[in-house]
Amino acid sequence: MSPKPIVLKIGGSVITWKEKSFTANLPAINRIAEEISQANVSQLIIVHGGGSFGHPLAKQYSIKEGYRGERAQLLGFSKTHQAMVYLNKLVVDALIQHNILAVAVPPLSCVVTKSGRIATIMKEPLTRLLQTGFVPILFGDAVLDSDLGFTILSGDQLAASLALQFNAERIVMGVDVDGLFTADPKSDSSASLVKQCRLHELKEMHKQIKGVNVTDVTGGMLGKIIELTPAIEKGIPALIMNAAKPENVYKALRGERVIGTLIQKS
Amino acid sequence: MSPKPIVLKIGGSVITWKEKSFTANLPAINRIAEEISQANVSQLIIVHGGGSFGHPLAKQYSIKEGYRGERAQLLGFSKTHQAMVYLNKLVVDALIQHNILAVAVPPLSCVVTKSGRIATIMKEPLTRLLQTGFVPILFGDAVLDSDLGFTILSGDQLAASLALQFNAERIVMGVDVDGLFTADPKSDSSASLVKQCRLHELKEMHKQIKGVNVTDVTGGMLGKIIELTPAIEKGIPALIMNAAKPENVYKALRGERVIGTLIQKS
Repeated sequence: MSPKPIVLKIGGSVITWKEKSFTANLPAINRIAEEISQANVSQLIIVHGGGSFGHPLAKQYSIKEGYRGERAQLLGFSKTHQAMVYLNKLVVDALIQHNILAVAVPPLSCVVTKSGRIATIMKEPLTRLLQTGFVPILFGDAVLDSDLGFTILSGDQLAASLALQFNAERIVMGVDVDGLFTADPKSDSSASLVKQCRLHELKEMHKQIKGVNVTDVTGGMLGKIIELTPAIEKGIPALIMNAAKPENVYKALRGERVIGTLIQKS
Repeated sequence: MSPKPIVLKIGGSVITWKEKSFTANLPAINRIAEEISQANVSQLIIVHGGGSFGHPLAKQYSIKEGYRGERAQLLGFSKTHQAMVYLNKLVVDALIQHNILAVAVPPLSCVVTKSGRIATIMKEPLTRLLQTGFVPILFGDAVLDSDLGFTILSGDQLAASLALQFNAERIVMGVDVDGLFTADPKSDSSASLVKQCRLHELKEMHKQIKGVNVTDVTGGMLGKIIELTPAIEKGIPALIMNAAKPENVYKALRGERVIGTLIQKS
């Protein structure tokens, strides 16, 4: 039997420059490719985010909200997907240059959502890629949706879904902060890192946020992490860590100690 | 009910420079994008070939013949697919620039073959793209194969299969010669163009070639066209014409007269 795959999510903020539209952070992409190559994991699925490639266009054309019957918006969908395809090309090129058997698998062509949630996924190409030793590279993408016409599928939802479907050993979420904080570490110096967290604690934190209808005090991190709940519920642990810091991706893939937030079922 | 789609295949030799590896013929790509935009077809599926992007790598690593258990060949598969993704990006960019609602759909992520023939295809994203008014752009690709591990899926086989699956109105095959000739027009000046051809005549010609085990005297064109047989058999006519000549793609899509070979069931 094949070993269980690791699902590695790399946030868009790590591999693009947030302030500059359509600008990849090539040094970061290359460094991470090098670390993945060094880690030499036998079964690996990678999902990356959109950062400054996907988000500005998706926002401009309200892709997430669905099709509202205007041709201009359809062209915006085409452009959003194409921007993501281009970022993905840069990532896959770097991985192949580092001798990784990377194969691009755009979600648009194999996933359909229903009201924004993954409803259908064609597993066979992914299964065969993993069996043969390839590393499928997916990404947050503009996808077709059976209720909305189209929408945005986030890389976080996709990573959790793939972890479930392929019975992953664990999920490694590489973001641009050290993990989940009690407040937004980018604006609040009293924020402290949550090093370990059980699922029921995570849900409790989320419920409080939703209950009082405030913005996510953690700077959006909790909302992102909550996407992982279905996978964690099935016993797949998730480690949130800073992929912008050298060596972290390598260490996390090798199972070595890394500063971050480890979330487990119980 | 939606109108039936036209399937347009553009040969790799039309959009790349055959003699120069990984070199796109950008003027040709832009001209064809302009013609497709002008033709303004409401339901359209485009398939393009690999030309000097896909073929050299596929040949170097014997991708078509299947996986023979060597890691170097797996990296060759990754490189072959990635080269095709890059050519596709250039094509889709040009189409979007010409206001066409183009969306890239790489076959690797939604088609699995069995001994080189299409066995499974995820239709739902394609169906939804067409319903919403998008133009799916597919291509000859390195794909997973249930017998061979992997192989090459030709753009010709794919175009015929899509025509069948989506009940196409007709197939337009854009190549770099005027159509099917009685001999290879590139080397034999006595070659004459076959303007019309019934399916049984095409099969007879092909049987003769296979029967005497000679190379395809038509310069490989007959072998390519024979891929279209299953679609033609179901009553979908196919026009083979020269997409390297300006206006031909426009005229063919509009249903106007074009020099070429029209193949019909009977």
